[in-house]
Amino acid sequence: MKTRLKQLVGSLVIAQACVAGAAEPVDGQQIVRAGTTPSVVGPEATFTGRVRVEQLWPANPQITASGAYVTFEPGARSAWHTHPAGQRLVVVSGVGRTQEWGKPVQELRAGDVVWCPPGVKHWHGASPVAMTHLAVSGTLDGKNVEWMEKVSDAQYTSR
Amino acid sequence: MKTRLKQLVGSLVIAQACVAGAAEPVDGQQIVRAGTTPSVVGPEATFTGRVRVEQLWPANPQITASGAYVTFEPGARSAWHTHPAGQRLVVVSGVGRTQEWGKPVQELRAGDVVWCPPGVKHWHGASPVAMTHLAVSGTLDGKNVEWMEKVSDAQYTSR
Repeated sequence: MKTRLKQLVGSLVIAQACVAGAAEPVDGQQIVRAGTTPSVVGPEATFTGRVRVEQLWPANPQITASGAYVTFEPGARSAWHTHPAGQRLVVVSGVGRTQEWGKPVQELRAGDVVWCPPGVKHWHGASPVAMTHLAVSGTLDGKNVEWMEKVSDAQYTSR
Repeated sequence: MKTRLKQLVGSLVIAQACVAGAAEPVDGQQIVRAGTTPSVVGPEATFTGRVRVEQLWPANPQITASGAYVTFEPGARSAWHTHPAGQRLVVVSGVGRTQEWGKPVQELRAGDVVWCPPGVKHWHGASPVAMTHLAVSGTLDGKNVEWMEKVSDAQYTSR
């Protein structure tokens, strides 16, 4: 699947960057320098509008969660989805929105921290103002997200 | 020990904030709003200079790593330490320094991402300019750091 392929490519880019950017042997401290990892565009199949993903680190056996900055342009949002091992979001800038299935849309502002427990169907994205969040995604059996249908304009604008 | 007590108090504050700030039942999405969790001063026993810790989320069974912003005023730094389950750092702003035992001091700049593997003795902190990083700390048997001696001025200024 195209999405899986993009995720895989993204992971490989990160893995390579970790090795290429390492100033020390693999068993020592490793520094990946700013600007050495290309950003990825959120695929159309799983996002509405323009979304930029900046991978920060991959999951590994010690910390089984990956990290990324995700920037949603005004009106952009993820599709509905669940996380098999949950996800932490930290809003870095702007004003965003999130919604759990069957519940009202909630506004997110810089400094808000969200816990999305495993299996809870939800979406997140920008408001009419852009929003960037850090996403720390737990991994279960190599998977950190289960994608579902896209968020309609009616759902996005509901209150 | 005073440090352990402070860590415990910090964890309790976070745990309480997660419950108090939750807009939904515990099994749904939880939002901890910006400004609802007090920051903590880095204890003198394990830090040199003024350090502010802003806890973001606690470790839980799904994502066994906690998250915090740590701000080091100019010249401030951690003591030497290791992490039993490793740590990821993302430099948010400013200019910092880090050093692995027996290796040269390295400069850290905004956007740099550091992986500190388990058991690697190191320190991190500000340069003569302040530095803020996100710290994502893996937990093993409830512990995410093993503190050692403080970083001397000679070590801090070495190249």
